[in-house]
Amino acid sequence: MNTYVIKYGGTSVENTDKIKQIANDIVKRKDIGENIVVVVSAMGKTTNELIVLANKISKNPSPREIDMLLSTGEQVSISLLSIAIRDLGYKCVSLTGVQAGIETDETHRRARISKINAEKIDNLLNKGNIVVIAGFQGVSPSGEITTLGRGGSDTTAVSLAAVLEAPCEIYTDVDGVYTVDPKLYPYAKKLDKISYEEMLEFASRGAKVLETRAVEMAHKYHVPLYVKKSSSNSTGTLIKEMDEDMERKLITGMTIDEDCLMVSLNLVPFEGKNISNIFSKLANENIYIDMISQTAPYNGFVNVSFTTREDEKFKVRQIISNLLEEFPTIDYIMESSVVKLSVVGIGMISQSGVASALFETLSNNNIEFYQVTTSEISISYTINEYDKEKVIKLFAKKFSL
Amino acid sequence: MNTYVIKYGGTSVENTDKIKQIANDIVKRKDIGENIVVVVSAMGKTTNELIVLANKISKNPSPREIDMLLSTGEQVSISLLSIAIRDLGYKCVSLTGVQAGIETDETHRRARISKINAEKIDNLLNKGNIVVIAGFQGVSPSGEITTLGRGGSDTTAVSLAAVLEAPCEIYTDVDGVYTVDPKLYPYAKKLDKISYEEMLEFASRGAKVLETRAVEMAHKYHVPLYVKKSSSNSTGTLIKEMDEDMERKLITGMTIDEDCLMVSLNLVPFEGKNISNIFSKLANENIYIDMISQTAPYNGFVNVSFTTREDEKFKVRQIISNLLEEFPTIDYIMESSVVKLSVVGIGMISQSGVASALFETLSNNNIEFYQVTTSEISISYTINEYDKEKVIKLFAKKFSL
Repeated sequence: MNTYVIKYGGTSVENTDKIKQIANDIVKRKDIGENIVVVVSAMGKTTNELIVLANKISKNPSPREIDMLLSTGEQVSISLLSIAIRDLGYKCVSLTGVQAGIETDETHRRARISKINAEKIDNLLNKGNIVVIAGFQGVSPSGEITTLGRGGSDTTAVSLAAVLEAPCEIYTDVDGVYTVDPKLYPYAKKLDKISYEEMLEFASRGAKVLETRAVEMAHKYHVPLYVKKSSSNSTGTLIKEMDEDMERKLITGMTIDEDCLMVSLNLVPFEGKNISNIFSKLANENIYIDMISQTAPYNGFVNVSFTTREDEKFKVRQIISNLLEEFPTIDYIMESSVVKLSVVGIGMISQSGVASALFETLSNNNIEFYQVTTSEISISYTINEYDKEKVIKLFAKKFSL
Repeated sequence: MNTYVIKYGGTSVENTDKIKQIANDIVKRKDIGENIVVVVSAMGKTTNELIVLANKISKNPSPREIDMLLSTGEQVSISLLSIAIRDLGYKCVSLTGVQAGIETDETHRRARISKINAEKIDNLLNKGNIVVIAGFQGVSPSGEITTLGRGGSDTTAVSLAAVLEAPCEIYTDVDGVYTVDPKLYPYAKKLDKISYEEMLEFASRGAKVLETRAVEMAHKYHVPLYVKKSSSNSTGTLIKEMDEDMERKLITGMTIDEDCLMVSLNLVPFEGKNISNIFSKLANENIYIDMISQTAPYNGFVNVSFTTREDEKFKVRQIISNLLEEFPTIDYIMESSVVKLSVVGIGMISQSGVASALFETLSNNNIEFYQVTTSEISISYTINEYDKEKVIKLFAKKFSL
């Protein structure tokens, strides 16, 4: 029998009616002779509600205790889903992360899976059970409950698929990966397939459909990954190894990251290791840094800009205040009304001209951009928020997205 | 350092303010140099809410999955309480039943504790931690999460106290054990101490302050058991081995069990094993049977009455319907407007006259009773519900309760 790992997010299990609905979908798969492992997230907004509760008690709750708290969310979902599946007359067993043998390191709130002992899961499948596993959680070598951080349930599902040598299906509220976020560009096309490399660029550049870590893991272990809409007959999008079709296309899609804070440090004395010192200071405080650009020195000074997430604003301002004591010449600007727009395509590796076509489009339409960075398969720009819609339309037309 | 096991029920942790309040109470104990192990129940009505959720999905949810579901309730409480204690600057670690080494049998929803491996708790205490443990839950030999059934957190606390050779303090919303339930008799007196035997009679005859199993366990392992009110300076009630003071008192207290259904089977043919067959049938369906009384045979028939809980009504009626096919002469009556009133006192062992004093009081006041049963240290009557208040007052006066 073929085994499939299928994962449902929080909105798919947000109430008992939806839980019954997906139980129905799952047993249909069992009926056609498939072995099914289901991974679920916490119901609806449970995780956020639990964090709010903890923050009412302490401004700085212990990560160890937060993991103890949050892991209950998925435990509630797995038991309810298992009750729903059993109620339809099927054999079903739910497992917590600990029981499923999902071992992680000791890093609370963003643990990494180190190993999965799939023996128990295999035994249960062999006995004809549907196995329902709590996403987002695991157990550390010292026996502590850990959680995997943002999008952790996707990572759980892909890791299980890797160990069970099964394909992985991620059910979500959109029916696949689109060339452009349909909320921003309603004419966007759904992609039938996309390469791991491109999906990674999509995910890391703001597409919210899948988490970067899950895609990396799928790529590493060659797990075929499907993104589909719950309870629909849509074929979704398959994320897989690159193939010839994909190479032929110049641009696969475009992502827009609106959670973007641009920081410019002007008049930094150009001497010694000033710039690298500044970035070490940011790194020491775990500030997320995305695009960095620097101009050539002029009159002994350089200007440097970088982007980060908007929720880092407070911490960044504090670090810059300290910098000003050391470098009083620095004049800094923080700008949050910018967005990052990236075009992604594995075809860029073998075909040139994408960059020039993009630059031309921007300049012909009098659109300014602040920064530009490129990777092998993507080009990203920071632009003014009010140019966003215009640029999306221009690029989408240009590359038939 | 002396170790204490202290247990808080659901109302003591029903919101974040109350959790912070008990965290304050707990660290005061640490300040005076005590080793503290805390056992907590689920917040407020969480357990009931989770059961309602499961019943929305299935009328007959799997006990295994219900345990998976319910055990999250205590896990939320322990993490929040631990966050509150750490926020006050103290070392604290929360442990689930599994992590605390609480081993049970495989009976889901009413598991019995078979063993506690206290090594982890000891280590944590030795490192200066306050240890917060989830009540009501454990782990079976096959690694399944189990729950202990009604009042399970009390049992967890007493079992831990037995293993750690510590006294056990049960914090609740009343400040101790009273001679009579103060809600029914406002002049009732609080008892400073009571013997295990008497407390067992109290608990099994309807006093809700402690569960029977917890008292049995305390008795078996000689655990001094205190019942106290949360965040008060009251000394509460100590439940301990019998002493001379206790023996001197004839009657310690009185309990009233209002959840009482009296079933009378009249005209049962008096031959062979009819009566024992009837009770086997009830036992096979796990019907809770309390008082049984039977009259001497007359004209070849006997009448038999028993009491049970009101929620057994439906099942009992079904069993009797089947009986009628076998014994068509039987005429049955079910009566739920009765209550059971018990007087309890260890002094009864050595002193006589209690029964006659009670009978006299009832007859002088024209009060009918349906059944009477006696144990070494108690006498119970079923009386009409409308006589309840009158009898309570009469008996309380008679024995200065």
